[in-house]
Amino acid sequence: MEAELKEMLNDLESLKSLLPDPSHLSSINKLQSRVEHITNMAYSTPMRRSKVKDMSAEVVDSNPYSRLMALQRMGIVNNYERIREFSVAIVGIGGVGSVAAEMLTRCGIGRLLLYDYDKVELANMNRLFFRPEQVGMTKTDAAVQTLSDINPDVVLESYTFNITTVQGFDTFMTSLRTKAFGPSKEGNGVDLVLSCVDNYEARMAVNQACNELNQVWMESGVSEDAVSGHIQLLIPGETACFACAPPLVVASGVDERTLKREGVCAASLPTTMGVVAGLLVQNTLKLLLQFGNVSPYLGYNSLKDYFPTMEMKPNPHCSNGACLERQKEFLLSKPARDAAAARARMEAEAALVAEGPLHDDNEWNISIVDDSDVEASGAAISDALPEGLTRELPSADQFQKPQAAEPSVTIVDDLEELKKQLEALNAD
Amino acid sequence: MEAELKEMLNDLESLKSLLPDPSHLSSINKLQSRVEHITNMAYSTPMRRSKVKDMSAEVVDSNPYSRLMALQRMGIVNNYERIREFSVAIVGIGGVGSVAAEMLTRCGIGRLLLYDYDKVELANMNRLFFRPEQVGMTKTDAAVQTLSDINPDVVLESYTFNITTVQGFDTFMTSLRTKAFGPSKEGNGVDLVLSCVDNYEARMAVNQACNELNQVWMESGVSEDAVSGHIQLLIPGETACFACAPPLVVASGVDERTLKREGVCAASLPTTMGVVAGLLVQNTLKLLLQFGNVSPYLGYNSLKDYFPTMEMKPNPHCSNGACLERQKEFLLSKPARDAAAARARMEAEAALVAEGPLHDDNEWNISIVDDSDVEASGAAISDALPEGLTRELPSADQFQKPQAAEPSVTIVDDLEELKKQLEALNAD
Repeated sequence: MEAELKEMLNDLESLKSLLPDPSHLSSINKLQSRVEHITNMAYSTPMRRSKVKDMSAEVVDSNPYSRLMALQRMGIVNNYERIREFSVAIVGIGGVGSVAAEMLTRCGIGRLLLYDYDKVELANMNRLFFRPEQVGMTKTDAAVQTLSDINPDVVLESYTFNITTVQGFDTFMTSLRTKAFGPSKEGNGVDLVLSCVDNYEARMAVNQACNELNQVWMESGVSEDAVSGHIQLLIPGETACFACAPPLVVASGVDERTLKREGVCAASLPTTMGVVAGLLVQNTLKLLLQFGNVSPYLGYNSLKDYFPTMEMKPNPHCSNGACLERQKEFLLSKPARDAAAARARMEAEAALVAEGPLHDDNEWNISIVDDSDVEASGAAISDALPEGLTRELPSADQFQKPQAAEPSVTIVDDLEELKKQLEALNAD
Repeated sequence: MEAELKEMLNDLESLKSLLPDPSHLSSINKLQSRVEHITNMAYSTPMRRSKVKDMSAEVVDSNPYSRLMALQRMGIVNNYERIREFSVAIVGIGGVGSVAAEMLTRCGIGRLLLYDYDKVELANMNRLFFRPEQVGMTKTDAAVQTLSDINPDVVLESYTFNITTVQGFDTFMTSLRTKAFGPSKEGNGVDLVLSCVDNYEARMAVNQACNELNQVWMESGVSEDAVSGHIQLLIPGETACFACAPPLVVASGVDERTLKREGVCAASLPTTMGVVAGLLVQNTLKLLLQFGNVSPYLGYNSLKDYFPTMEMKPNPHCSNGACLERQKEFLLSKPARDAAAARARMEAEAALVAEGPLHDDNEWNISIVDDSDVEASGAAISDALPEGLTRELPSADQFQKPQAAEPSVTIVDDLEELKKQLEALNAD
């Protein structure tokens, strides 16, 4: 429409040159100013929220951050405004990813990287976020449109490609590494990756990238029957990676035979996806802003309102080479971690005497597991799962292949030796 | 803008009459058609979803219900399209109510009644649903605007008044009773009331209305520190009403002294509110479409990802007269319920022999509690709460006042007699 209005101005201009009579000129001038007025009306969005330089805690109706800054006064968060320093990548802008993106945008996250190659369809309208008038747009474009209207303070980057292709994976890796935002930070260009994809291949691609980049990420999923879901925290080398064991899912109790692949269309519900997105972003906030406990794994069985939790250690026989590298590094850094933990304990005790602070410096907000357990973790992946959890794939997975000829075994041997060295070190 | 475009057409028409030269006429005709084109572009909303007569299970991108109808094929729901027969009232269109309304709209609920008297402010932007350009609109108007765009199949009714005023309460009662939609149905004009309000008075008003109308409802709430919440199912006479006992809330573990009323501004998060709305609407779907188990009470402690559940029996000393009436009716209908349960059991057993159906006819989808417990429920409200739940108000509430002179005691005496009669009846 903007182009049409511009052409109309040109037409009026050329009409002017054809008419020498001044009485006609004034009519045309009037028409031109009308066109300009209409252009202004059409392109000045009403009540666009302006950018906000600093987050204020002031309690007025016009402050979009007052209810978030109140988290500080309530003693939940130490420094809420730190949220503006963080970059979060969301892979998959579907029923879970789009809602997660909206929640983080409304919370005032610093920067969001959005990855999807799909388009909005009417068939997506049974989940939150996308609107019928966005049908046909790419999900990334539609998301940027909606999110920038909601909160112009958030830096939005959209990546419209498939991360499971060779070229897509490379671009994905590069984008995660790039430190344009907060260049002084250590590590990668993002603080957290949220996987909100709907298939195994994409999850394995996220897993590969995060293992290679030593990047903490969270995985999420919803079952094909739409009534269960889960979230999981993955810290390379420290927790199980996605390839360490068959992925865990929450059993809905529905007969698997009716459920599995009778057609191509999986069921979905805005409720289950909204709950999973909410749990995912809540754990993201806890991780980044350091409050509460971040769940290593949290399931949701909606038929029973049952929420199983568990922890998973890395598999020393994992088929993923980068995972094994990260495991080795994690073991190697044990003495440094022990020293830091001891120091933190001492400081906390000292601080307690002088009316201590609310939070220790615990980067990932996870309760400390005694590292001496690591020795036993060679046997690792226990078959005993909490009630209601099942493995998505049969247990006869890669890591149960005969191990003698596998290159990963060499590394495992190194790992065993490392452990012995560390034990000797600790015995002193 | 429409007026401007019309005036421009008039101006062009008068310009035409001034210019006799046919070469000029064609220029002006061209301008006129441009203006008409712009008018069409500006006023034909792009890709408005058209209404759908029947829900189809067809798996095509253009079907907004394919992923919901798939719940049938997956064996979760017997008849998904029944959702179009239901009316749900949502009281309070804030952080929880607006998201609940959007979820039900996207699920294709038949009719939604929306109650709120407040306006949209920028300070609401840290929760899902409302957009900055809606600031200044009433929440009901803004919600109808958004929801009718998302799904034109849903019948939307908005009620912009405060239900805690005398006149507001009357109008509220009348609106719940009105059976314009599905007039052949038994009972009230709505199938369920969802309370999504943020204060005690409004909850007591919903409680009063639902007790008087014998209307099943669900209550929801989020704590002032934004990190915990709950949902609760209330069936007049059968479960505790909101006045039966001090309301239960989920403890966040945060020091109450920092939390309570230091300022007027409570904290809120889109995550906690999104999770509570998701749990609330999931339980609504389970109740209406008869699948899974509907939770009598479900809490959410987000700091620990802990979800306590419990059941609450009605208090025979409840201060609410209408609640006592409903309790009396519930006891009176016991023989009929017992007979129906026995019949259902027999039919189920008979059906099992002939490869039984997935679902019994269990109107509220709640696991059957042996009614003989009712005798013990005189002592009723147990002080033992599941870990993590606390009462919002001190236990020295109305029902612990001296009882001798209270009018409710008379009714309680009737209740005691009724019980004896029923016991005698059952002894036969």
